[in-house]
Amino acid sequence: MKINENRLANDFNYITSQSSTELGCTRLSYSSEDLKVREYITEKLKNIGAEITVDSVGNIRAKYNPANLNTKSLLIGSHIDTVPNGGKYDGLTGTLASLEVIRVLYENHVEIKHPVELVIFAEEEGSNFGSTMIGSKYITKKINLDDLKKLYTDLDQIAFEYIRERGFTFAPEKDNYVDGTDELAMIELHVEQGGILDKKGLSLGIVQAIAGMNTIQIKVKGVSNHAGSTPMKYRKDSLLAAGEMIYKLSKLVEGYESAVITVGKISVSPNASNVIAAETIFNIDIRDVVQENIDKISEKAKELCIEIAANNEVEIEVKLVGSSKVVHMDESLVNIIQDQANKNNLSNMRMNSGAVHDNAMLNGIIPTAMIFVPSIGGISHSPYEDTKFTDILAGVELLLHTVAKIVS
Amino acid sequence: MKINENRLANDFNYITSQSSTELGCTRLSYSSEDLKVREYITEKLKNIGAEITVDSVGNIRAKYNPANLNTKSLLIGSHIDTVPNGGKYDGLTGTLASLEVIRVLYENHVEIKHPVELVIFAEEEGSNFGSTMIGSKYITKKINLDDLKKLYTDLDQIAFEYIRERGFTFAPEKDNYVDGTDELAMIELHVEQGGILDKKGLSLGIVQAIAGMNTIQIKVKGVSNHAGSTPMKYRKDSLLAAGEMIYKLSKLVEGYESAVITVGKISVSPNASNVIAAETIFNIDIRDVVQENIDKISEKAKELCIEIAANNEVEIEVKLVGSSKVVHMDESLVNIIQDQANKNNLSNMRMNSGAVHDNAMLNGIIPTAMIFVPSIGGISHSPYEDTKFTDILAGVELLLHTVAKIVS
Repeated sequence: MKINENRLANDFNYITSQSSTELGCTRLSYSSEDLKVREYITEKLKNIGAEITVDSVGNIRAKYNPANLNTKSLLIGSHIDTVPNGGKYDGLTGTLASLEVIRVLYENHVEIKHPVELVIFAEEEGSNFGSTMIGSKYITKKINLDDLKKLYTDLDQIAFEYIRERGFTFAPEKDNYVDGTDELAMIELHVEQGGILDKKGLSLGIVQAIAGMNTIQIKVKGVSNHAGSTPMKYRKDSLLAAGEMIYKLSKLVEGYESAVITVGKISVSPNASNVIAAETIFNIDIRDVVQENIDKISEKAKELCIEIAANNEVEIEVKLVGSSKVVHMDESLVNIIQDQANKNNLSNMRMNSGAVHDNAMLNGIIPTAMIFVPSIGGISHSPYEDTKFTDILAGVELLLHTVAKIVS
Repeated sequence: MKINENRLANDFNYITSQSSTELGCTRLSYSSEDLKVREYITEKLKNIGAEITVDSVGNIRAKYNPANLNTKSLLIGSHIDTVPNGGKYDGLTGTLASLEVIRVLYENHVEIKHPVELVIFAEEEGSNFGSTMIGSKYITKKINLDDLKKLYTDLDQIAFEYIRERGFTFAPEKDNYVDGTDELAMIELHVEQGGILDKKGLSLGIVQAIAGMNTIQIKVKGVSNHAGSTPMKYRKDSLLAAGEMIYKLSKLVEGYESAVITVGKISVSPNASNVIAAETIFNIDIRDVVQENIDKISEKAKELCIEIAANNEVEIEVKLVGSSKVVHMDESLVNIIQDQANKNNLSNMRMNSGAVHDNAMLNGIIPTAMIFVPSIGGISHSPYEDTKFTDILAGVELLLHTVAKIVS
């Protein structure tokens, strides 16, 4: 079995040429760029006999089942949408890798005992309505049409109507949920979105767990006063307190193997150079693959911020605004993947995912696993995102061998 | 000589009733509210024989000179414009105090050896075009019409034309500069805009010096990456470095008597909860009444930020974006004011001004001095700005006795 490297390279080039913007790639779900790519990929799968269904939110399932088996399908795939001015790879990598795997199975007339299904999840990035993984949440019944209608209506009725005009009905007639009845397992290939593989010079990551996350909002309330005429001792400076919090919060993950803590968003009022900041709001993003650590660090973060607020004589409000639990990949799938990597001399390591993926939504319903290819410099969601093509080929090869191992 | 308390209270009430917004007072220079107040005040001065001139940028000079003297004038006054949703007092306090002083001199037929001139400086707050103290800078030739035209044209041609339609010609025919030829000295009464007098329970502050200032812009450049999938040790987090800077910068003024350091303005990019901040820009505002300290602290601030940037492996740009020198009040004027305060049992202290005032622009050309009345809780540039009326009366009384002492 041999991957067709030129064919795969052409797929990437054609698709990015259809979605290139002045800076990077912009391909939002339901956009005309998205529609073109949907058609491009499904056309190729139709040509080799796959049965295509599209559900009411736009999830595509393309079932390759040449022997008309009644067994459960192995799902492979990812998403194709990007953030605005995103990179060339991201979710498209796993989607095109899965397309190539099915084409190779077809060309080699591989006899399969389970159908192989390419899944393309809609609206993973959340670029339209600010809510991520809409497709995979919908297909696993984590959200329903009412939730969606509410979300879309609240935020942008015009965009919602526009999407409906594009043929996405948001009505459940065509829906084809993933509930384990017809699905054996799911394997997703994706770019790492971190710099570990690149730093280590390895081609492949075999994911063990997807980090859980707490997002904590901190609102610090001080008193706005003139920066010149208010002595230091009389100040209640919300931004000064926040600065101390941001600095000291980063120390809380010292000694943990994989825990990370980030403050990436801050807003200050009145935000004037010569006025002491009355109010500062920021988010703390805490992640780890050990749920207990997330809980412990979150508790310490809260205590630390409250203590710093008290010392600075400012008021504080602490609110948990987002949370997701740690997700563990299926151990036997992980072992099969690593065996195949080693047998085929593909450099690899076991690792964790700091980012959440569609795959995590299916986990717990069916066994799931993930394969990572490197992100050069760890850069992601950026026009400067990049992956060596040889590493992408290594990923496709590993996915191919793994799929063949499971279904044949 | 007796101040007319009701008359003064009525002045404040009428003027704020003309400029009240849902929250606080909004009276921008050249607005219809401003025009009403200009007319209200100049009408009262015309009625007692003062000679009114308005220069091309809107500075008002009202010369009370009943004996037609040829001697130099003592200038008293302040500004009448507010920030949007500002307070009731601010510069209006000194303007109405000065009006009342001239009315009392008139009513008491005080024989004066120097004319007394009420000056109302235009556009002190800079609310129209973002540049402060336009009137006092113009009247002292620190800026000229070309500078103004450039500023106004660059920023808001429509607003500039609107102001011209209001009769402010921005042409020098009527200009009457303060150059010391006709001016003896300037005394400005203003609210403190800080909390020292309020904390100490004193009615009056006699200003010794106006703090100088350096504003330093810090631009920290890191690398934007995924907050979940980037291990702490691989990060170049601009906001984390900025947090440490903000926290540690505040320590640099410890041990100094009057130096203050403030970070009140910050902007972060991309400013997303789950993305490591690529770029963080903030301003450091450093002030003191000792010029040497400002220079020393600024140097240390720069070194500290560069050191923290290096430790965090982020790039840094440091730029001085604003600077003003320490201004010392005239010692003999300060002594006269304090003598008068003590003789009249008005509770007072010598103090410094952290905020810059129009008065500072005249300093160095003619002797200047300032009298402060308390800002309750130190609150300023806010709808919640407040001063006890008894303290305002104390201020007017001190200004009256001081003026009488100097001119009679």
